[in-house]
Amino acid sequence: MAASVIGRRVEELTTPAFVVDYDKVETNCNMMLQTCTTMGVKLRAQTKTHKTIEGAELQTGGTKRGLVTSTLDESEFYADHGFDDILYGYPLIPFHMPRVTVLTKRLEKFHVMVDSRLAVQTLLETPPPSSKTWSVFLKVDCGNGRAGVWWEDEEDIDLALSLCSDPTRITFQGVYVHCGNTYHADDPKDVDALRDENIERLLKFVEKAKKRGVICPTVGIGSTPSCRRPADTMKKLNELHPGNYAFLDVQQSTLGSCSLEDIACCVATRIIGHYPRRNQMLIDCGFTGLTKQGEGKMPSGYCVIRDHPNLKLCSMTQEIGFVETVEGKLDYAKYPVGSLLFLLPWHSCATAAMYPVYNIIQNDRIIAVWKPTRGW
Amino acid sequence: MAASVIGRRVEELTTPAFVVDYDKVETNCNMMLQTCTTMGVKLRAQTKTHKTIEGAELQTGGTKRGLVTSTLDESEFYADHGFDDILYGYPLIPFHMPRVTVLTKRLEKFHVMVDSRLAVQTLLETPPPSSKTWSVFLKVDCGNGRAGVWWEDEEDIDLALSLCSDPTRITFQGVYVHCGNTYHADDPKDVDALRDENIERLLKFVEKAKKRGVICPTVGIGSTPSCRRPADTMKKLNELHPGNYAFLDVQQSTLGSCSLEDIACCVATRIIGHYPRRNQMLIDCGFTGLTKQGEGKMPSGYCVIRDHPNLKLCSMTQEIGFVETVEGKLDYAKYPVGSLLFLLPWHSCATAAMYPVYNIIQNDRIIAVWKPTRGW
Repeated sequence: MAASVIGRRVEELTTPAFVVDYDKVETNCNMMLQTCTTMGVKLRAQTKTHKTIEGAELQTGGTKRGLVTSTLDESEFYADHGFDDILYGYPLIPFHMPRVTVLTKRLEKFHVMVDSRLAVQTLLETPPPSSKTWSVFLKVDCGNGRAGVWWEDEEDIDLALSLCSDPTRITFQGVYVHCGNTYHADDPKDVDALRDENIERLLKFVEKAKKRGVICPTVGIGSTPSCRRPADTMKKLNELHPGNYAFLDVQQSTLGSCSLEDIACCVATRIIGHYPRRNQMLIDCGFTGLTKQGEGKMPSGYCVIRDHPNLKLCSMTQEIGFVETVEGKLDYAKYPVGSLLFLLPWHSCATAAMYPVYNIIQNDRIIAVWKPTRGW
Repeated sequence: MAASVIGRRVEELTTPAFVVDYDKVETNCNMMLQTCTTMGVKLRAQTKTHKTIEGAELQTGGTKRGLVTSTLDESEFYADHGFDDILYGYPLIPFHMPRVTVLTKRLEKFHVMVDSRLAVQTLLETPPPSSKTWSVFLKVDCGNGRAGVWWEDEEDIDLALSLCSDPTRITFQGVYVHCGNTYHADDPKDVDALRDENIERLLKFVEKAKKRGVICPTVGIGSTPSCRRPADTMKKLNELHPGNYAFLDVQQSTLGSCSLEDIACCVATRIIGHYPRRNQMLIDCGFTGLTKQGEGKMPSGYCVIRDHPNLKLCSMTQEIGFVETVEGKLDYAKYPVGSLLFLLPWHSCATAAMYPVYNIIQNDRIIAVWKPTRGW
């Protein structure tokens, strides 16, 4: 099926279909590379939003070096396709060690992330592959409240010290912070404040570690809301690791990361029926084609329907979406059965995850099909 | 990867993993076949919940005959694997015709479903494959409020008459009702009332059609809440078409379809970290492993954590779940990092859709791996 769509128009796609505007994703990726150059920091691109080879090539500017992944499956997928300098950006537990060992052996630079005594002990007690060390980042929580050692806790420096205790086993790479709390900001100003708070706390942690003899070679932070709103405070770091910026989404637009026009992906869906008795029409995109993550977030329902500000996706079942007007009667003549609508997702990471293939378009023609990796 | 898990214990699985208890799914499928025998009706099993060959074999009692699918992809998948008598249970639009034509040609019995003048016109104007007719069900809306002609509208009988107007083109199979409004019931009694209301309305429609000369050979209804609570009113029908019953889920338990013990599927997830500062632990199941569909539905958060009524999945990001207690301090000694928890999903159709493979277990050992079809 997949190869046969190349050269076709979007109108010919089986729907629902995940559609990516090549020029926009390229622009988004180049802008982030430029931001990092301007800030004098390295970009370690998070791949979880798209999970494709082609997307990661754009994110790395063709170098195929410098990624952070959200699963071991992703790490292996990129290793299989010639990528290197990959950080498995997930709290390490002993169960991961067999696959981590293989990746450490295969790649020039494969890194893991720890936030617990158990993980550090496991690494210290497990011999790394011959002529290698375990390459390790310490995850620090500077306010996000998910994984990571809490930046204020003094015992965390003990953990960092342990990571430096046996250089034949562990190479300590530095600290990694996800400032994901920027997603809970009330407005763009609040994003900026949270970004700066995270950076300030991280730098305090690094300073405190230094006083106890721990040098952090890499000091990195990331999240698309913060990195799409770069500030001079970032120049004090040396690594950024956002991910969603490749595609962006409606959520990002509400956080001041982008405009709706910058969003590189959408779901193409067909109108499958008119139901004037209830002033609705149905489309062939249900929750398996979009997810329900936008619930209650937008006046236009579960997504923004591109170019149709008076339409609202008010409900979804597995394979069907219910569209009505925000206000007034639906003018069915404008929406023939079989015609397409384009849905801008609230959360592109979630929506992309529903698709086995992405249709890449340029000038309304499909120029490529990208196949994401799936599973764990 | 997949084959290698056969014979392994659940504790050895890469997590998150979708786990199906073979005995439970077999029991659920046999019970529904028994219900249909008792009611004297045919079971046309909806496949959308699992989308696997093995699941559909259990649903059809090994006959591989009598399915309803939610996508053309599913229809083709089952046709490829020796199934027949398949209804593509989705509002037909002209765009579907090329694939519908191939399926009509390939199968002994391939049926489509219509609810519009446009669809009927399209079928009447398109010559079916040689020696075949288009085999068509009319979808009737008896209160669900999604697809279907409204049961009270007199023009709908005109549509049914059109379906009978050219027997060289169209074989009219009868009427199909999805009583999905049973999912919005307040309690099991309300499920029963909605079930009976749908049946009553459907029978009135059939009667009205008969008066105008339209005979409906098949009169069918379906939804798991109604079919898991069968009633004598169903004996007046001749087809039932539930789907979720193969797996069931927490939502079904709240509707009186089952107990939590009947749920045949769950997500196996590992504890990846302890965060006593905030009385939480993290697990390796985020929204890509469960979906957020349970949001706000249960005191235990996004799912029910099997055997741990005091645990609550309070939040999720892409690959991480946040678990806390419903009440009191978390006793971390009971939940070592690396140990498993089993999540009963709110909506198994949605959760199953997140997985490229299902691990089938019997006595805590993996006996098979089922691969669902994906896409549209």
